[in-house]
Amino acid sequence: MAYTPRERMVYSAAQLVRARGATGTGVRDVVEHAKAPRGSFQHYFPGGKDQLVGEAVLWAADFAVERVRSYRRTARTPTPSGLFAHMAKQWKQDFTERGYERGCPLMAAAADLVGTDSTVTADLRTGVERWETAVAEELVAMDVPARRARRLATVMISTLEGAIMSARLHGDVGPLSTVVAELAPLLDD
Amino acid sequence: MAYTPRERMVYSAAQLVRARGATGTGVRDVVEHAKAPRGSFQHYFPGGKDQLVGEAVLWAADFAVERVRSYRRTARTPTPSGLFAHMAKQWKQDFTERGYERGCPLMAAAADLVGTDSTVTADLRTGVERWETAVAEELVAMDVPARRARRLATVMISTLEGAIMSARLHGDVGPLSTVVAELAPLLDD
Repeated sequence: MAYTPRERMVYSAAQLVRARGATGTGVRDVVEHAKAPRGSFQHYFPGGKDQLVGEAVLWAADFAVERVRSYRRTARTPTPSGLFAHMAKQWKQDFTERGYERGCPLMAAAADLVGTDSTVTADLRTGVERWETAVAEELVAMDVPARRARRLATVMISTLEGAIMSARLHGDVGPLSTVVAELAPLLDD
Repeated sequence: MAYTPRERMVYSAAQLVRARGATGTGVRDVVEHAKAPRGSFQHYFPGGKDQLVGEAVLWAADFAVERVRSYRRTARTPTPSGLFAHMAKQWKQDFTERGYERGCPLMAAAADLVGTDSTVTADLRTGVERWETAVAEELVAMDVPARRARRLATVMISTLEGAIMSARLHGDVGPLSTVVAELAPLLDD
């Protein structure tokens, strides 16, 4: 746990954005949550809140990419539906163990900021692009043709994001289980 | 266009939440956007901003329900994939004609408020439930068995919500076209 104050602030920003949205997350809350020295924020993030939230978004995307890549190491016989279940499982675990307060930071930031002129939108685009590319690459490694892999990655990420929101709304992992089961034949076709 | 100031405020709240999120939408902005008399807000919405946003969310859900029901009147041979395309088409039109600033008000409000103790969460649950029920009812009218209709409704709404966000992020309706085409065989199976 040898994280620097700077790393802790990025992590805290991601966690607070997950629960309260980007607009609802103040710099002061992040500094406090990260137990960072007062006054250090300006030093580490001269670009202000947009820089902080942008880095939090990219951190979250890299976390999602790592989850996607980890599937291959754990699955004996990797399948597209198995990968999708693996992606959803992380969310089911998080909701079951920690409650439904926290959603996806990418979705939360996008909901608040895409319609504005925030520079975070570019980071969101980069982050989602990395995530989709990672999913498509894993599908290609399972012999899905490249073009179809790209399209299925779009379906998987869109459906997962919507189901995460639905699960939070209902306080129930049911929607995640439903989309995993229903998409399976399509993904493995 | 004989809308009352009260109706205009609900509509304006929905439109502003779509673009800025629930946290980013202030009561004063809504009153101004609705060209409502100053001071009338408290009169019409004694429950404050939560009441206003809650009504905006239910208004948006009823709008989505109406869109779902309209498919049967326009389609010669209704199919589940045709219904999904019909739902997505409205978004593609809105984005193409009016730009990508405005997303789904249900998603926007959910992203900001589900993790908080806002009373809007109950309205969101009611709204999404109405929407899912309407989709399932249309599928049943196309001879999809009731249990499967319910599950497909969850898939359709989750995937649509995620694809709306992805389209906004990329400033491109591509993700909506992709999910409509890819889900078609699954929905019509």
